Order: sequence, then C-alpha cells, then structure tokens
Amino acid sequence: MTTPLSAADLFAAACGHTRRVATLASIDALLGWDQQTMLPSSAGPHRAEQAAALAAIVHAARTDPAQGERLVALAEGPLARNGTPEEQATIRLLHRDFLKQARLPVRLVEELARTGVEAQSAWARARADSSWPLLAPWLERMFALKREQAACQLPDLDPYDSLMDDYEPGARWHAIAALFVRLREGIVPLVQACTTASRRPDDAVLRRMCLVPAQQAFVRDVATQIGFDFERGRLDTTAHPFCSTLGPDDCRITTRWDEHFLPSALFGVLHEAGHGLYEQGLRRDWFGLPPGEAASLGIHESQSRLWENLVGRSREFWHWCFPLAQRAFPAALGDATAEQVHDALLVVRPSFIRVEADEVTYNLHVMLRFDLERAVIHGDLAIADLPAAWNERFTADFGMRPPDDAAGVLQDIHWSAGLIGYFPTYTLGNMFAAQLMDEATRQVPGLTAGFARGEFRPLLAWLREHVHAAGRMLESEPLVERATGRQVSEKWLLESLWHRYGPAHGLGPGA
Amino acid sequence: MTTPLSAADLFAAACGHTRRVATLASIDALLGWDQQTMLPSSAGPHRAEQAAALAAIVHAARTDPAQGERLVALAEGPLARNGTPEEQATIRLLHRDFLKQARLPVRLVEELARTGVEAQSAWARARADSSWPLLAPWLERMFALKREQAACQLPDLDPYDSLMDDYEPGARWHAIAALFVRLREGIVPLVQACTTASRRPDDAVLRRMCLVPAQQAFVRDVATQIGFDFERGRLDTTAHPFCSTLGPDDCRITTRWDEHFLPSALFGVLHEAGHGLYEQGLRRDWFGLPPGEAASLGIHESQSRLWENLVGRSREFWHWCFPLAQRAFPAALGDATAEQVHDALLVVRPSFIRVEADEVTYNLHVMLRFDLERAVIHGDLAIADLPAAWNERFTADFGMRPPDDAAGVLQDIHWSAGLIGYFPTYTLGNMFAAQLMDEATRQVPGLTAGFARGEFRPLLAWLREHVHAAGRMLESEPLVERATGRQVSEKWLLESLWHRYGPAHGLGPGA
Repeated sequence: MTTPLSAADLFAAACGHTRRVATLASIDALLGWDQQTMLPSSAGPHRAEQAAALAAIVHAARTDPAQGERLVALAEGPLARNGTPEEQATIRLLHRDFLKQARLPVRLVEELARTGVEAQSAWARARADSSWPLLAPWLERMFALKREQAACQLPDLDPYDSLMDDYEPGARWHAIAALFVRLREGIVPLVQACTTASRRPDDAVLRRMCLVPAQQAFVRDVATQIGFDFERGRLDTTAHPFCSTLGPDDCRITTRWDEHFLPSALFGVLHEAGHGLYEQGLRRDWFGLPPGEAASLGIHESQSRLWENLVGRSREFWHWCFPLAQRAFPAALGDATAEQVHDALLVVRPSFIRVEADEVTYNLHVMLRFDLERAVIHGDLAIADLPAAWNERFTADFGMRPPDDAAGVLQDIHWSAGLIGYFPTYTLGNMFAAQLMDEATRQVPGLTAGFARGEFRPLLAWLREHVHAAGRMLESEPLVERATGRQVSEKWLLESLWHRYGPAHGLGPGA
Repeated sequence: MTTPLSAADLFAAACGHTRRVATLASIDALLGWDQQTMLPSSAGPHRAEQAAALAAIVHAARTDPAQGERLVALAEGPLARNGTPEEQATIRLLHRDFLKQARLPVRLVEELARTGVEAQSAWARARADSSWPLLAPWLERMFALKREQAACQLPDLDPYDSLMDDYEPGARWHAIAALFVRLREGIVPLVQACTTASRRPDDAVLRRMCLVPAQQAFVRDVATQIGFDFERGRLDTTAHPFCSTLGPDDCRITTRWDEHFLPSALFGVLHEAGHGLYEQGLRRDWFGLPPGEAASLGIHESQSRLWENLVGRSREFWHWCFPLAQRAFPAALGDATAEQVHDALLVVRPSFIRVEADEVTYNLHVMLRFDLERAVIHGDLAIADLPAAWNERFTADFGMRPPDDAAGVLQDIHWSAGLIGYFPTYTLGNMFAAQLMDEATRQVPGLTAGFARGEFRPLLAWLREHVHAAGRMLESEPLVERATGRQVSEKWLLESLWHRYGPAHGLGPGA
C-alpha cells in the first residue's frame, strides 16, 4: 500500500528519470564524438559494441514501465491542463516520446546502434576507394532497419513522415515536397542567371595559401567574437564538420582545414558555431527536458545557416573581419580588400559535393537526396539502383555528371548512420533562417550595421529570446511563425538569395 | 521448470555477462580519458553526473544476482577443478570479484564515482593555487568513503590490505613495509654516494631547446619502434602522463612537452608505451576476462619501468636512438654525442616532484606516500595533519623542505581520485622490472646488444610469453617467480641501480 504521489511529486519523479536518461544519452554523444575525432583505426568494432551496450541501457531506461505509468498519470492529471507552459509541454512531449520509444523492440534499437557504427566504418572505406559495393550491403541493412523503425514507432503515419518525426516533429513529406517545388521554381532561374551573367564574382583571392596554425587561431577568434563560449565547448578537426552536445556545458564543434581555401575552415566554424550558439543558449536548468531542448533539426539548421550565410557572407561582417584576416594572413591578404573578399564569397558554381556547394545551388543538392531517400523508403527505388538514379538526377539538375561515386552517391555519411528523413531539414533551415533574419532586422535597429563593428550580441540576444528560450515547447513552424508574425514560406529565402547574389552578378535585386 | 544448464553453457553465460560489464566499464574509461585530455573547463559537474550514472549501471551489472548464481554453480562444478587453466582461473577470480563487488552498497559506489570526479577538479584548482584548504575537505570525504569501501569489500582484511587488493591482489602491507625497509637500506647509501661523488653526470645537454612539434614526431617514432601499435592506440597531451585502455584495440597514452627538457616527453612516452605494450600484448580473445587482463598494477608498472629505465636509459638504446634524436633536433644535439646523452640521463638529484624524480630517489617518494596514506587509513594520522607530516618526512628523507604544498602534499592526483593503496605498486613495479630484465638478459643471448641496432622485438617477445600471456591467472609474486625462477626480492633492483649509477658517479659497480 503506497500513498498516491501528488502531481508535483510525480512531475519531479518523471523529470528526474528523464534527466537521468539524458545523462546516459550524453555518454553516447561522447562515444560518437570520440569516434569521429579520436578513435584509433582498429578500434571500430569495440566502439560498436560499446554503442550497442549503451543503446540497450538507454532504451530500457526510456521505456521503463514505471516512467510510463507516471506519464499516463500526469497526462490525465491537473498539471497537463493547469500547469505552467513548461509543465504542460513537458508532460505532453515526454508522454509522446515515451510511447514512440516503447513501441521499438530492444533488438531493433541495438541493431540500429551496432549497424550504424559498422556502416559508418564501411562508408569511410567506400568513400575513400569510391567503391559502391563496399557500402551497398550496409545500406540495404540500414534502410530495412529504418523501415522497421518507421512502422513500429508511429504506425499511423506514412513511413517517411514517421522517420522525419525524429528530426522535424510535425513535418509531412507532401507539404515539404510542395514547398520545395515552389523554392525550386525560384532557385533554378537564379542559378541560370548567375552562371550565365556577364559579371561573375572571382574567388581567386580565397585560394591563396593560409597556413593551418594561423587558420586555427583565426577561426577560434571569430567563433569567440560571435559568442561561442569555449569554457563550455571545444573546436576539433574532422573531415566532415559537426556539432555535438555532450552536456549542458560541453558543446563540441569541428571543422576541417584547407591551406589553399580559407573558407573551408571559416565557414565550417561559423556554421557549427551557429549550432553551438543555439545549444549554449538553451535553458540549462531544463537540460534534457523539452523546455531545454532544441525544437527540431530545421530550427537547428536555421541557426547555423543564419550565422554562416546571413552573417558570415554579409558585407558588414567583412568590414569587421577583414582586418583580422589580413593580420592573420598577411602574405595572402596583404594587397586584398574587404570588398574583394566579400565579392569572392558570392560565387555561384554548380559542384558535385553538397558540403562544398555555394548557398544558391545547395538546396538543389538537398532536394535530390530528399526525393531519392523517400523513394527508397516508399519502395519505389532499390538500393542497387541508387547510384544510377543519383547520377541521372544530378546530371539533370546540375548539367554535369559525377566523375565517380565518391563525388556522388557515396559523399554523405547520413544514410550509413541511419539518418534518413534528415536531409530536408537542411533546406527547411535555410528557409527559417531567412525568415528569422528578416524579422530580426526589422525589429532591431542597426542590427547589420553593428556587424561592421564586431557587434553580434544584439542578434544573439534576439535569437535567444525568440528562438532559443522556447526549447521544443513549440514545433518548428509555429515557433517561426510566433517569432516573425508571418506564415512559414519560401519567399524570404528566395528574396534573400536574389537580393545578395543578384547584384554580385550584375543583376538587379529581385530581378 | 528449466533444464539445468551444462557447465559449458554456464561458463559461456558467465563470460558473456562479464564481457558485457567490461564493455560498459570501457565506456567509463573513455569518460575518464576525455576528462583528462579534452573536457571544457565548465563541463566538470556534468561529467561527474555521467560517471556516477554509468558507475551505478556497471555496479548493478557486476552484482547481478543471476551472475552470482552462475558463479556459485561454476565454483562448485566440474570446470573449477578439471577445466583448462583459463577456465579454472576465470571461475575462481570472477567468483571472488563478484563477492567483493556485491558487498559494496550502490550508494557507496555512486558516491565514490561522483566524489572522485569533483575531488579531482578541486585538486587541479588546489594544485594550481597551492591551496591545501581547497582540497582538504574533499580528501576528508574521499578517505572516509575509502575506509567504508575497505570495510565492506573484504571485511576480514586489514583495511589498507583491503584497498590494496584492488591494485595488487594478494599484497599485504606488513610484507611490503619489510621489503621497503630492506630496499631503503640499499638506496639511502646510493643516494648519499651519488650526491657527494666527485664525478657527477651533467644534464645540461638535455636542457637545450627542442621544439615541441619535432618532439612529437620523434617520440612517436620511438614508441612505434619499441612496438607500440598506433592502429590500436593514440598519443595525446596531459599535464600528468597516463595510459588508459578503452577497448582491446584502443589503448591511449599521453605525455607532456617541455621545450627545454626533452626527457620530460620522451620518458613519459617510454613509460606509458611500456604500459601500452602490456595492454596490447594481452590476449584479445579473452578481453574483459582474467586470462586477458593485467595481473596487477605492480606488474603493469614493471612493464612501464622496464621500458623507461632499463631500456630507455641504457647505453645500447642511445647508440641506436641518438642519431634519430640528432636528426630531429640538429640545433640542440648537433655537437653532442650518444655517450654524453646517456651520461646525462644518470643524474641523481633529490627533488620535490615524484614524477620528475630520478630513478634512484624515486622510490623514496613512494615510501613516503605509502607510510602517510596507510597512517590515515589506520586512523593514526588526521587529514588536517597531512601537509605537516609530509613536509617533516620529506625534509628527513631528502634534506630539503618543499617550498609550498603544490610541490609537496598537493602534487599527486591519486588521493583525490580515490587511488589509495596504489602508490606502493610503483616501487613493487621497479623491483619486478629489475628481476624480469635480469632473467630476460640471461635467457635471450645478445638481448641488450640488439638495442643498439633498434632491435626491441626479442625483449617484447620474451615479455609477451613470460608475463603478458598469463593475464591475471597468477598474482604478481607467483608470476614473477615463475618467469624468473627466483623469489621476489629487492636484490635485483639494488644491483641494477648500483651497477648503472655507480660507474656514472665514479663509484665501482656494487661498491
């Protein structure tokens, strides 16, 4: 005989359990970060065992029946209706998360974890050798597991929507497909106009040699200046830059270094530090709980793209940044100008690799992946046919054919890592970023002018208030709509692209 | 109604469970390695939460009653008497480990983990500020927890012996104290003779500037040459060098860099690579089980000391290594000779910091800590009195008084990490190393002469056969006695020290 707990006690117990799970999940984040940055070459199989063992424990904790009972009682109790907004959102979302997790068999969770680690190793070898057969069997396995996951976790949804729910709660593929069609209708003419323009930006100035140690110091300075807190984070080196949160005060970003192309490291860092600013701006007292979690990957990407493209490629940013860059790289930039560097950053040039793509063509890369992975999940495309489908679509969209699979279907880690339904969030992020930046500029007088003086705190403060503070209490569309007072639309991104890339190519803004 | 399992099935189940626990424990090793090498400055508290959460899970798995039942059945079954040596040792040791763990309350295990992380942060601040009051309350807490652990885990043993059992199974403090007295009787006159000798080695040649990047490449080469496998390991930077095993193919060593003292990095690496060679030499098919585990910390230290001192400070080693060093550091060593460097490595000079001590005085540092920590555990010395007791004993042993606590009682991380009963294994290691090296030299013709040609594989092969392959199927004393055919004694270490340091100081060998 136990006395029933009060609603407040139940809520505290449910939150305590969830935080404990979040702490265990943050250990898994360390396993992943270390795997990408530090793992000795022969240590992959044991890391897979570690990931699988921990995944099983995390899954068991996430699906603990006692927690399920607490969440049912809370969902039916007074706090779900009369609690603070934080309490109501926490109860609603934890209950939903619980049901979704509890529907996954432990075996599937363990297999996904183990297969993810091994398939990523296979992917690294396959990409290095440009050998599709090294990866294909792993993708067969991974897509099969993901289809199983989709059917288990949200059985009433279309399987692709079920998978997207892990990254962009509330998103539906048919709505995204429609949005992407409209976006495409604006981007294709812009690419066409840029690549045939009489005036073409020249990026030769960015291809002069900048020594890596000087790059390291420089990009660290820039990240610090825009607000990334290195007492609560790190910067390391990986082939594929990423941002990973290992705890409320432990956000780790990575970039790569190219002696002959400074933007590789710099924009890698601006992008990942944008993610990091979001993570560092979440409410740390709610770590691991919905009010202290990111809203979605689309919102996450909006933050990284905003700092990378809307800040980092702006004229005002370079008025501030150029003298720093000149001091860091006197041989490369001694005779250059801020205008010259700013202009060089607006090159539009169709290319094979998504992560190296310019801002305008980037979204075409995303749409290709969205359509292909959706076709595989829906059973309309076989894994074996992926390379050919990729090359055909790519040739149609970009007017050139990938020279090999390393520059085509093998270039991204996502599918081998089981990140399916993830790609569309990149383009959603670009759209959200443009819409948020437009509104911030309206609301904060002198916002972009301040960039020229290294003043980025007003922008960060606006984002903290209107985006970061909400955690995931709202889904991405309502969040953007609340922050901007406008419906989500492709319009702001198209305006932003035409407005910035048009003049650089001798076209009128919005031409 | 279940059919009783066969002995072989039971054994497989018990081993499978133990391996799973070892996999989880290897995740904890990653948490610790990352904490030492990578953790952002504000991330300590969350890392403590991660460590505590994982410790609770590991402890629960280690004390799973189903595993206890399996082990009891195995201990009473036929394999415990008639199995292979591996099976017999595995059953005996897993059963013993299980009982020891099961006697520890979960609360104590979690508190030890959490206190260890937080006390280590406090220690780092205390040492940086040379502020004993910053550390003292954490040591009060830690020693109290360790006394509780001692009383729980092996209640029939003296509490210090109970704690030593975690590091040196079978060791007893009164026997070690007696061995240390005899060792001291040989070392004190050697220190006396060396520090008053008319001939004194001069290490000025080692204090010339060697740039850190060149040091990094050089020590990596040396580690590779003695046999450390970088496909199964890493080398990183920490203030306090260490070796940590994160999996059967993931052994990570660290060192530190001093531009004005090459031996700091080089001997750090030789020492830690010595540990690493042992870890990499364990039977990987028995990972996590007694036949594939290290015998004890004393045996571990014997391997590190052997490579560091008996190989790395030998004349033959420098005949091989000097030309490499000269190429790496032409400005510093261009006009030096191998003999000069070898001689410079035999300086005996009493100093405050254990990890910087020469090979001869080193053991006096260890004996001091052994006596003090034992007095605290036995209730004969209060934590508050540790700094004074340290300074008094140090002054008596070394003829000089630490200038501050950072150079005295605050210098080691061990006590804050809960590593009590650990220090004596350093000197046991020195003794085992000398005895093993003496025997290897007898058995393998031309062993040390080969060092001059960079031939270290014969020594490594001898160690793999006679030490590494045994895992922890034998305790340290029987293992050394089996490998050498002689009783463990201080005699070989004293002979080795007199033989090498005597002539360098103009004394006859064994004078």
